[in-house]
Amino acid sequence: MQLGMIGLGRMGANMVCRLVKADHECVVYDRTPQAVKNLQAQGAIGTFSVEDFVARLAAPRAVWLMVPAAAVDDMLATLIPLLQPGDIIIDGGNSYYRDDIRRGTEAKSKQIHYVDVGTSGGVAGLDRGYCLMVGGEKEVVQHLAPIFAALAPGIDAAPPTAGRKKPGSTAEQGYLHCGPQGAGHFVKMVHNGIEYGIMGAYAEGLNVLRNANVGKQKSDSDAETTPLRNPEFYQYELDLPEITELWRRGSVIGSWLLDLTASALLTDPKLESYAGRVSDSGEGRWTVAAAIDEAVPVPILSAALFERFSSRGEAGFSDKVLSAMRHGFGGHVEKTAKQ
Amino acid sequence: MQLGMIGLGRMGANMVCRLVKADHECVVYDRTPQAVKNLQAQGAIGTFSVEDFVARLAAPRAVWLMVPAAAVDDMLATLIPLLQPGDIIIDGGNSYYRDDIRRGTEAKSKQIHYVDVGTSGGVAGLDRGYCLMVGGEKEVVQHLAPIFAALAPGIDAAPPTAGRKKPGSTAEQGYLHCGPQGAGHFVKMVHNGIEYGIMGAYAEGLNVLRNANVGKQKSDSDAETTPLRNPEFYQYELDLPEITELWRRGSVIGSWLLDLTASALLTDPKLESYAGRVSDSGEGRWTVAAAIDEAVPVPILSAALFERFSSRGEAGFSDKVLSAMRHGFGGHVEKTAKQ
Amino acid sequence: MQLGMIGLGRMGANMVCRLVKADHECVVYDRTPQAVKNLQAQGAIGTFSVEDFVARLAAPRAVWLMVPAAAVDDMLATLIPLLQPGDIIIDGGNSYYRDDIRRGTEAKSKQIHYVDVGTSGGVAGLDRGYCLMVGGEKEVVQHLAPIFAALAPGIDAAPPTAGRKKPGSTAEQGYLHCGPQGAGHFVKMVHNGIEYGIMGAYAEGLNVLRNANVGKQKSDSDAETTPLRNPEFYQYELDLPEITELWRRGSVIGSWLLDLTASALLTDPKLESYAGRVSDSGEGRWTVAAAIDEAVPVPILSAALFERFSSRGEAGFSDKVLSAMRHGFGGHVEKTAKQ
Amino acid sequence: MQLGMIGLGRMGANMVCRLVKADHECVVYDRTPQAVKNLQAQGAIGTFSVEDFVARLAAPRAVWLMVPAAAVDDMLATLIPLLQPGDIIIDGGNSYYRDDIRRGTEAKSKQIHYVDVGTSGGVAGLDRGYCLMVGGEKEVVQHLAPIFAALAPGIDAAPPTAGRKKPGSTAEQGYLHCGPQGAGHFVKMVHNGIEYGIMGAYAEGLNVLRNANVGKQKSDSDAETTPLRNPEFYQYELDLPEITELWRRGSVIGSWLLDLTASALLTDPKLESYAGRVSDSGEGRWTVAAAIDEAVPVPILSAALFERFSSRGEAGFSDKVLSAMRHGFGGHVEKTAKQ
Repeated sequence: MQLGMIGLGRMGANMVCRLVKADHECVVYDRTPQAVKNLQAQGAIGTFSVEDFVARLAAPRAVWLMVPAAAVDDMLATLIPLLQPGDIIIDGGNSYYRDDIRRGTEAKSKQIHYVDVGTSGGVAGLDRGYCLMVGGEKEVVQHLAPIFAALAPGIDAAPPTAGRKKPGSTAEQGYLHCGPQGAGHFVKMVHNGIEYGIMGAYAEGLNVLRNANVGKQKSDSDAETTPLRNPEFYQYELDLPEITELWRRGSVIGSWLLDLTASALLTDPKLESYAGRVSDSGEGRWTVAAAIDEAVPVPILSAALFERFSSRGEAGFSDKVLSAMRHGFGGHVEKTAKQ
Repeated sequence: MQLGMIGLGRMGANMVCRLVKADHECVVYDRTPQAVKNLQAQGAIGTFSVEDFVARLAAPRAVWLMVPAAAVDDMLATLIPLLQPGDIIIDGGNSYYRDDIRRGTEAKSKQIHYVDVGTSGGVAGLDRGYCLMVGGEKEVVQHLAPIFAALAPGIDAAPPTAGRKKPGSTAEQGYLHCGPQGAGHFVKMVHNGIEYGIMGAYAEGLNVLRNANVGKQKSDSDAETTPLRNPEFYQYELDLPEITELWRRGSVIGSWLLDLTASALLTDPKLESYAGRVSDSGEGRWTVAAAIDEAVPVPILSAALFERFSSRGEAGFSDKVLSAMRHGFGGHVEKTAKQ
Repeated sequence: MQLGMIGLGRMGANMVCRLVKADHECVVYDRTPQAVKNLQAQGAIGTFSVEDFVARLAAPRAVWLMVPAAAVDDMLATLIPLLQPGDIIIDGGNSYYRDDIRRGTEAKSKQIHYVDVGTSGGVAGLDRGYCLMVGGEKEVVQHLAPIFAALAPGIDAAPPTAGRKKPGSTAEQGYLHCGPQGAGHFVKMVHNGIEYGIMGAYAEGLNVLRNANVGKQKSDSDAETTPLRNPEFYQYELDLPEITELWRRGSVIGSWLLDLTASALLTDPKLESYAGRVSDSGEGRWTVAAAIDEAVPVPILSAALFERFSSRGEAGFSDKVLSAMRHGFGGHVEKTAKQ
Repeated sequence: MQLGMIGLGRMGANMVCRLVKADHECVVYDRTPQAVKNLQAQGAIGTFSVEDFVARLAAPRAVWLMVPAAAVDDMLATLIPLLQPGDIIIDGGNSYYRDDIRRGTEAKSKQIHYVDVGTSGGVAGLDRGYCLMVGGEKEVVQHLAPIFAALAPGIDAAPPTAGRKKPGSTAEQGYLHCGPQGAGHFVKMVHNGIEYGIMGAYAEGLNVLRNANVGKQKSDSDAETTPLRNPEFYQYELDLPEITELWRRGSVIGSWLLDLTASALLTDPKLESYAGRVSDSGEGRWTVAAAIDEAVPVPILSAALFERFSSRGEAGFSDKVLSAMRHGFGGHVEKTAKQ
């Protein structure tokens, strides 16, 4: 079927390629003309204005937005006046689900359908397919099924779950209608919250392995340093690239994130090409905020979020307060950083 | 080659089956005669006393212990006097790596080799193979390579890591000599610490999804209850069995642990067959303790550990202290549990 | 000066008593007539309808609301139509500071002033005085200074801070104009967030002390139980009522919350009169939510919040997910609770 | 009575001054002669060798060690051969309680008594008195009561706990016999663990207050930055020195640590004289380790410990792992630090 795609960055462009390969007709637009031209070369129909983009789509139109969350409202303000009743807007980016609810209500007042799609898969999605978490009206979601099916990884992407017999379900294909407007991005939000936690678990564990040799280091013996009581138990020089490769086969903690970690450590065993300033793109925050509203304890997901904040220096003032208190009650003077 | 196996529980028995299938000769012993007989039927050589077990092995003997961590020292006390210089003991259970160092030193004084193997794979290992993290002397580990190779999943168990060219390494086969005595169990310990963190991340996220309908519930409006400010944002009835199945394909958080979760939710969508009292088997504790010795921050791994403690009621007294303080300063009276 | 007080619960009633003692004229109202009568006996002017209440106040009126946060909007809807331009409303309860901003804007449209006051002190405030965190217009706050001064503890409530010379400041008296509308409740919100953290720190530490005798207990020796490696180090029977009393004098951790804890443990050493279900009244949640918006890491404040959620059973489903996973990969069966 | 003091640093010297003022005879030694001379000027009997120190004490001698934890064993090796059966050694420093148990057993084999004293109070102890947590044999502790009473703050240091009638107890004086050897340092260890948690709670809360103005800042709008959704709610410029001074009077979170914080913020409102590298001196680590052995959940105490580790850069490798993963799945490139 025909799909219009607005936003041809890393994600949008790859998705168009995947759709074109599956013989869907893609009309594309991006504010950067070169991005459009690149996809024309892949078989997409390029357009260079939103007006032209809309004109090239047959009603009822299906327009997929793959733009930064902060740019969605502006794009909708441009787009909606050009659309007709019965047309469909799909927000496939990382929007906050509460915005979906608001936008869906606004679109509905103009008889335009609004579908939110949480899209996971990253740069590998071109080959592996995308995991799609969909929210919106049932009939509209069903209408878009051919698109979702082409983007999703398909049933062979994972071994079957024993005993599963749900013929009507599309979850095994890699896409799912999760509920009404916002449900797709809600599920994606939590997906990313979990992702933060899993990533942090690997990161912390690898840091413990990396420091298994602390018993070999000479430590300061002053009142500001806690001596290591049993240096004989910390004499290991562990090979992290080999261990992460090892765990990929047969261990309980095998995962795609581990595959990526093994790959990164293979080329840069000490990760010297990174500074360790870790961004967060909102979903982790929103997941914790939702958990608080729901009174659900999420010590792991919040710890993962706060680790990222701290990696960017945001704990600095807290730390100074601690040093000031220690100076106050004990006369303790801060040690300088290791050279 | 020939291997002796002591301890024919879930793990030990399956490992023997896997070895026998790979045409290794297995001499087996368990204090429960029926466990021995079961494996005789699978092609193993059964023995019914430790003496007989040792007698049936050709020197230099390779004896693999697969017994509970708490039972290893007793078994060694029985076994070592029956062995000869040059024989090899392999502890494949969940021993604390510090015990390996002690036991290895004791064994060495009798010219017996000691190898520690962290074994991951669980009940699925019979088919999937076991991920083996090995510590000990290099030559001894190499001597045992045929056994490790038969137990391990093999190179096809995971897609190749792009660019990897380490022909001498066995990590791609699923086993690895990690370092001297204790290194195998140290790596396994951290593996399990990570496992706790990953499991907790999924668990917390699923709890957030499950409570996405709190806006539909009528809540108390008293001074002891925080009202939900925006019930309209928590109106989703999410289908956890479908969502976990969905995430198995193409998402960033795909993993074997997720596969197991999807499978559990398929047969018991509300997990009513569980009480939620979560045991911990030591490695999570030891990982956090190692992190503290190394001064490595592990907020996620510790949160995962403490969640398990709390699930067993261990926070109860802390909670009472909080209630007592609240009563003291604010006259607050505890609410009773929901009926 | 004259003050009207609406809401004569624990907090409101005590505040009126304190004001009356300081020779301020208090006009009071509560929907429960008996509460009004009780304060009439203390020297307050009782009223039995909001209309009568307003009529008894001289313009410009100063009306202090001390009602549950959830009841403020309803009370304002009744009250505001009865007021005149220039009158002042003070919300002294536990409102969310974002509501202050909204309500202040609404009141301003009717030329009514709106002041938010975070009030700390609990049931002890009658004698100790109340710590007041105030937000609103500068002139209006200054107009109310006699009221704030009478409610606050006064300068003698704490030893002077060495070197402090800020004659214009009222902080030493125990009340402070923190900023524009909402600033008072923002500061109070964070105050309570800190309170949760401090309370949790004591609670956890006391739990560690209480269990210093675990080495004396016989523990199970099965694969689901981690054995205590060094029972000889956990042989202490510590006397918590005595230790908390001790810490009140000269220790670094002396505080009013510790005083309350010592008092609670004196009368109920095992805290058997509590079930350990700990409510939270919103501020802890809002503090963490604000921290997330600000990208400030708050692992302690969030841990304290989540401990409260967990104390009320909210981690139950997470825990079941963990048990289900453990069953999936290891065949582990949950242990039943200790009898 | 007579007491010998070895170790005349900040703590030891102040304690001698306090004892001399209370008319106790103090024989003092320090490896730095000037430290001895300083105390001679205060009325202590100075000695310049351990031999001379011991010779100046009357049997049964009472020798108080106030040296760094790492120096205790060396000092004992010198001291014990010079002592006689019936003499008493008191370790008043920050030793690990497990060392007390070992040292007590060794001392006992020579009929020397060993007492461990956890000493809280810091540099303020000279005036305020010291809170003393004591472990050891009952008779020996009673023999030392005059010394403990002189060092402790005394009953007037805190208001009485209502209803308390325990005439035999010394807790109200500020010292307590907590139990057998190690009990004093065990209680002090947990005291410090709690201290870390309380300090961290204040520090985090103050960081949230400090950033209440983030809505005024211009933020980046790129895919690596989460936009602040409601800048209008973060427009406050809060005065931390005033707020901490305020909270000292009448609030629920008043404490000595808050007094110190207010004092530090008074002289350095932005704490620019600190780098924020926070040391830990062992007790926080040991408290968490004890909690793990006891299966007591301590999410707050551990978060406080890990914040300190992170303040010293120890999370750096973890953070790099996260960045590497993000690059792997999403092609995300790290943002550079704010200039």
